[in-house]
Amino acid sequence: MKSVGVVVEYNPFHNGHLYHLQESKKATDAEVVIAVMSGSFLQRGEPALVDKWTRTEMAINNGVDLVIELPYVYATQKAEIFAKGALSLLTSLGVDTVCFGSESGQIEEFKKTTSFIHSNKKEYDERIKFYMGQGFSYPKATSLAFETLEGHENVLDLSQPNNILGYHYVKAIQDLHSHIEPFTILRTKAGYHDKEFVDTQIASATSIRTELLKGRSLDHINNYIPHATYEALHHYQHTYNEFNGWHNLYHLLRYKLLTTNSEDLSSIYEAEEGLENRLIAMAKRAPSFQSFMELVKTKRYTWTRIQRFALHILTQTTKEEMKPSLEGKAPYIRILGMTKSGRTFLRQKKGSLSVPLVSNINQNEHPFLTIERRASLVYALGYHGHHQENFLQKEYKSVPLMK
Amino acid sequence: MKSVGVVVEYNPFHNGHLYHLQESKKATDAEVVIAVMSGSFLQRGEPALVDKWTRTEMAINNGVDLVIELPYVYATQKAEIFAKGALSLLTSLGVDTVCFGSESGQIEEFKKTTSFIHSNKKEYDERIKFYMGQGFSYPKATSLAFETLEGHENVLDLSQPNNILGYHYVKAIQDLHSHIEPFTILRTKAGYHDKEFVDTQIASATSIRTELLKGRSLDHINNYIPHATYEALHHYQHTYNEFNGWHNLYHLLRYKLLTTNSEDLSSIYEAEEGLENRLIAMAKRAPSFQSFMELVKTKRYTWTRIQRFALHILTQTTKEEMKPSLEGKAPYIRILGMTKSGRTFLRQKKGSLSVPLVSNINQNEHPFLTIERRASLVYALGYHGHHQENFLQKEYKSVPLMK
Repeated sequence: MKSVGVVVEYNPFHNGHLYHLQESKKATDAEVVIAVMSGSFLQRGEPALVDKWTRTEMAINNGVDLVIELPYVYATQKAEIFAKGALSLLTSLGVDTVCFGSESGQIEEFKKTTSFIHSNKKEYDERIKFYMGQGFSYPKATSLAFETLEGHENVLDLSQPNNILGYHYVKAIQDLHSHIEPFTILRTKAGYHDKEFVDTQIASATSIRTELLKGRSLDHINNYIPHATYEALHHYQHTYNEFNGWHNLYHLLRYKLLTTNSEDLSSIYEAEEGLENRLIAMAKRAPSFQSFMELVKTKRYTWTRIQRFALHILTQTTKEEMKPSLEGKAPYIRILGMTKSGRTFLRQKKGSLSVPLVSNINQNEHPFLTIERRASLVYALGYHGHHQENFLQKEYKSVPLMK
Repeated sequence: MKSVGVVVEYNPFHNGHLYHLQESKKATDAEVVIAVMSGSFLQRGEPALVDKWTRTEMAINNGVDLVIELPYVYATQKAEIFAKGALSLLTSLGVDTVCFGSESGQIEEFKKTTSFIHSNKKEYDERIKFYMGQGFSYPKATSLAFETLEGHENVLDLSQPNNILGYHYVKAIQDLHSHIEPFTILRTKAGYHDKEFVDTQIASATSIRTELLKGRSLDHINNYIPHATYEALHHYQHTYNEFNGWHNLYHLLRYKLLTTNSEDLSSIYEAEEGLENRLIAMAKRAPSFQSFMELVKTKRYTWTRIQRFALHILTQTTKEEMKPSLEGKAPYIRILGMTKSGRTFLRQKKGSLSVPLVSNINQNEHPFLTIERRASLVYALGYHGHHQENFLQKEYKSVPLMK
């Protein structure tokens, strides 16, 4: 049973994702699709629009056969760690291939780039350090370092966000000595950062979220999402009245920042001398998350960097707790949902898995699951009292969604 | 300039308070009234219906000449510490008399009771310990201990809430070797715990709050409050849309309880082995503050005991920080508001004050003021973003209200 893995957030699942699934199956000749999906919080350090169970439902109703949770400790990190967590899960599961979208569309370019950077590693690392010393943010420093390496123009364009992510997938495969074969598909239509709808069928998740968070009706985005997404979003909106976002959680962050001293914050992951005090000072002044972020942001600290730190403060996630994510592979496989084909695939693989399967979070103990539970609690607190129950029940009692 | 002190919460100021002020002046022949008033949070461990500045305004528009803040570290404590904090402030200010309402109405009964308990102290303390060992709450154990002392029927009825408070005022005067002369006035009409309106002019603050928190219009309580209170409540409601209460703050408490482990809570004031875990477990289950309290409450832990602990968790107030409140006298006098007579009184006393006057919280540093600021921040977070600013501005920038 040939399988392809995809690494996703589905925030929310749209036509572009559907296209990617179909093309991935074609390109790899796979019968079964395994998605590694972020849970409550996403790579940019923000809460998902809708909870992980709703996004799992969208996934399995749109062609994914097995949805695996990318633990918080990987899902909320920079590309390198994010990719390593995701690829180690697919490797442990014995998935044959991985297929990602990119601006390049040429897998050879990715392979060339990893060996190019590998053979220029010393120079590359020194230049990153140099640019960071000049006050540039980490992502900007890596991209400047790359662009000043001689010969970089013959490999990948690493100023493109999906090329960067893809590079890290391919690099993770190498670092993990994984058997997985990487494929890439040319991304067409809307780029990730487009804020406006640019096409009649495909729009970026960002522009879809913008519409939804503005309170626009689902009819405005209906062209850009499959029917199963429409149904799921409609049900969600009907049940909870609103979508989640930092605007729902800022009062908790503010409370936390205004009742904690900077020493207590120094143990939080991504804390860095001075930044804690800056956040506390700005929380005093800023009545909304938007204004808070605008006050905190500098050349050195990107929006994403600050959002991730703010998220770890919100979920009380410490450096100590995050340490294991920087080394080794994901320690368990948590199943969020599956189709009949997904079950067949799992049955075939069950005997050869190197890490345990988790289908009920309550029957398993692992420090990463403790963080996961806490993250889900915090996510739920973005909603009003009686809705919170619903979320907590889902997280504590839900076994995988079956289709 | 003869002065009388009163110890108040004014939550909100009503006709009963007005009556008490007038009678206190008559009974003590005082020209000037000094009120020691709780700030953001009250003795029962709950947020005041309206903020301290609005309550100060009510006080000075209804006949109080000088409003002094009872610091959080005393205001949210059991009667003994509450009374000691308040009386030490009045003593430091050189106030001549104090006048409190009681079910007894006879000051001699209070004096007799303090010496009665003093001479039976060993027996009394042993019995308190005994009843607590039997699983009774502290207030219940003290009242059982008292009622089983031979001769108790010849002194005060200490099952009455205002008699208990008055007893602690008189005892605090003795313990502090204060020059203050105590007076008491018979409380008439509505007892503190009455939930229904019982009279056409006077209703308890509890019943007034109940109506307001139910969302009833001010017209429903208009008979029971002076015009100045009506004006202040009307303005407050118009500005902030709603009154404050635990219902506005429970999401923060829940967040705190669900992201903290019980060891971290053990440093919080009023923490007691086992109680922390109970609160965490119940926070997981309870979607509202009311349901949370009902789940946590036991024979041993009264509503008030739990509410106070919950409040200290919410404001992150530790045992270490609260320790100084248990010993010695209040370290500064913070003025919230005054009339012309209040200013004259202060000018006369200024030379002989034994502790500093604080009129701008930003120009003074004391650990108690740090707690006060934090408490006010938390109080403000009960409101929506743009209103929070208003509260913070008030606390940080307000100098005393003048009339």
